Amino acid sequence: MNPLRLIEKKRDGGSLSAAEWRFIIQSYLSGQLPHYQMSALLMAVYFSGMDYEETATLTGIMVESGERLDLRDIAGAKIDKHSTGGVGDKVSLILAPLMAAAGIRVPMISGRGLAHTGGTLDKLESIPGFRTRLTPKEFHQQINDIGVAMIGQSDRIVPADKKIYALRDATSTVASIPLITASILSKKIAAGVDGLVMDIKTGCGAFMARMEQAEKLAQSILRTAVANALPTVALITAMDQPLGNAAGNWLEVLEVLQALQNRGPDDLMKVVYALGAQMLHLAEGVSQPQQAQKRLQTLIRDGAAMDKFLQMVAAQGGDTRILRDAGKYPMAKFQQHLRSHQNGWVHEAHALKIGYAVVLLGGGRRTMNDTVDPAAGIVLQKKIGDQVEKGDILAVLHTNRTNVISEAARWMRSAFRIGPEQSEKPRTVLKLLT
Amino acid sequence: MNPLRLIEKKRDGGSLSAAEWRFIIQSYLSGQLPHYQMSALLMAVYFSGMDYEETATLTGIMVESGERLDLRDIAGAKIDKHSTGGVGDKVSLILAPLMAAAGIRVPMISGRGLAHTGGTLDKLESIPGFRTRLTPKEFHQQINDIGVAMIGQSDRIVPADKKIYALRDATSTVASIPLITASILSKKIAAGVDGLVMDIKTGCGAFMARMEQAEKLAQSILRTAVANALPTVALITAMDQPLGNAAGNWLEVLEVLQALQNRGPDDLMKVVYALGAQMLHLAEGVSQPQQAQKRLQTLIRDGAAMDKFLQMVAAQGGDTRILRDAGKYPMAKFQQHLRSHQNGWVHEAHALKIGYAVVLLGGGRRTMNDTVDPAAGIVLQKKIGDQVEKGDILAVLHTNRTNVISEAARWMRSAFRIGPEQSEKPRTVLKLLT
Repeated sequence: MNPLRLIEKKRDGGSLSAAEWRFIIQSYLSGQLPHYQMSALLMAVYFSGMDYEETATLTGIMVESGERLDLRDIAGAKIDKHSTGGVGDKVSLILAPLMAAAGIRVPMISGRGLAHTGGTLDKLESIPGFRTRLTPKEFHQQINDIGVAMIGQSDRIVPADKKIYALRDATSTVASIPLITASILSKKIAAGVDGLVMDIKTGCGAFMARMEQAEKLAQSILRTAVANALPTVALITAMDQPLGNAAGNWLEVLEVLQALQNRGPDDLMKVVYALGAQMLHLAEGVSQPQQAQKRLQTLIRDGAAMDKFLQMVAAQGGDTRILRDAGKYPMAKFQQHLRSHQNGWVHEAHALKIGYAVVLLGGGRRTMNDTVDPAAGIVLQKKIGDQVEKGDILAVLHTNRTNVISEAARWMRSAFRIGPEQSEKPRTVLKLLT
Repeated sequence: MNPLRLIEKKRDGGSLSAAEWRFIIQSYLSGQLPHYQMSALLMAVYFSGMDYEETATLTGIMVESGERLDLRDIAGAKIDKHSTGGVGDKVSLILAPLMAAAGIRVPMISGRGLAHTGGTLDKLESIPGFRTRLTPKEFHQQINDIGVAMIGQSDRIVPADKKIYALRDATSTVASIPLITASILSKKIAAGVDGLVMDIKTGCGAFMARMEQAEKLAQSILRTAVANALPTVALITAMDQPLGNAAGNWLEVLEVLQALQNRGPDDLMKVVYALGAQMLHLAEGVSQPQQAQKRLQTLIRDGAAMDKFLQMVAAQGGDTRILRDAGKYPMAKFQQHLRSHQNGWVHEAHALKIGYAVVLLGGGRRTMNDTVDPAAGIVLQKKIGDQVEKGDILAVLHTNRTNVISEAARWMRSAFRIGPEQSEKPRTVLKLLT
């Protein structure tokens, strides 16, 4: 097969066959297909797209590129949740132990934060000692024993995705719905899960800023998952403002602890329960969301979810004492209050701008090589729909870098829009697609 | 500047500024910008295009990437002709000495054949001893002394084009009108010419198969040339069947010798004279094509053009004895006649298929690393508009490889369409654009 002809075919709007994609993926992994041909092909995919069938084919071939975890000997349904990412999205840290407490097995493979979006692994690693790298054996054992494990992508699972994603990231070819679909689903399929709930964020802080794009991605994922025999549902949820109040790794862990003590912010908990209900539905066929939510609330209220969280942290080497006595955690050296200059209602708390402010403060990454300061971030005290008076604290900025505070505060100031008319709390769970 | 943002900008349909293109070209040449980012950018250009202003900017910046020849101290107008390539296109070998005989300076920088199209350098190199690499000093001296020199692209002139072209060739991004424009014009501008006549081929054997595409390329070249202060005109000429009768390097030199003895085939000479008239027009403002053609015909008839050709060959180390006594040249070991199976008229002599047959016979390249057999090729005895009888020879195949003859003959058979209705000789010079 001639790679040039395949690039040409895709460039001219054709579909590559399974044999052709297999050739591309295998020869790229072996190093025979050079990066520059792969990046040209990826840009051609960006423009020409892929139909659902081709996306499903590519997904299957990417799965073939590495090992597949086999969790079939573990009793119970293995269900994962995956979010397309946003600001303040700490849902996984609450939902994974909660669902394990409900008896579902949650083998969760997560990512790191990049640009304005946070990442589950960074949040977990802000807990001293927490290991996000487990061997396949340890991962398997922990899911069997505790019901939940949260780790990073292994080199052995879908190595094609790792190599292709790095190239996409370096060639402005990330924003392609079929490539996003294949990347997400290949990893979930290789992880051996029985079902998947997708949380597709939309709004200014999300990768898919417009609802229309979010729906397209949802459709692409649902159809591709079906074609690869992975039962999947998708929720589209709001990411116009940060989810919950905290954005920044350890600050979000603190909010997770509150949530597991039944004191989580409303918008955050709505998303947790909505996703949890869908996970229960996939695992057990339970399809009464109200009933499901009640059951999950009980598991939070009676401490079962918190126990599971602590068990998981302990199993993965994390320091649970600091979670029980969070005051001992070294906070950032500097805290600055952002106060309202006027009376009115909050109409906007722009997630993208707040995300950038978190990065500036040291809580996020500009490039994959940056290190993250776990203590840096922002805690919002006002969100959309809240009434404020002049002088009220809108947010608290946490950082160890003095030289960035005024710049971050400027971003934060521009993120808030306060007007004289009353505003409403926005909906968080926007749409369910199955 | 961040290359990712520039790829993104082009991907999203924006125009890069001069500073941005300069950054791209310089950092690609220095090796800082990796091939894979450049190829992603080139594919984005393929899809998003470039307006004339951006194409002109890129062209100027590519010129800056290397040395510029300075021919200003040589008296007289320095005019070049460039063809987009086809099958049997030996025009340069006739036209360059002819125009030098007419007093114009012709500093011609040519290319090699690839795929089904032939290349001027390969044709010249079929003359024993002919050197297509001259130093800038030798080149300059020869144009001063004889008025004409024909060489290959030097590494020092527009090195950006050399590097980018190789990448385009390996990533299916050749067929982009703005990139073709910048590639051609940057080299002509750097070569220090005062004017350029473009021969843009259209038809099944041309890069631009449809007239509409050929016109687009012509417009792009004309506007970009104007913006870079290079007076340029473009002719669109036919490439549905081979130009002249011979296709294959030495076989074409033989036809060139005939043409210089005033025995050239009609279609070929029409293109030679039409292009020559435009070169005279650029050089001298003469704008009576009939008058120009008469003058050029006289230079052929009285042997001045042939003398100039022989002078040039001698100056570049070529064996002129073999040109005077062509029967001594070692012909290909095998000749095979392709005969008509029916009575009628030739309606098609498909240039692309004939070009492939030439490659099969050893007369062309599949990849840039292939070597070319100078003796291999095809001589047509019938072309479109000719009447044929069953048993007439349509073409003679020349090759040193016995194992390919039947396959090449099959291609040749499929290239000819002979029908009972009378056919007409097609026009060769289709359109003039200024």
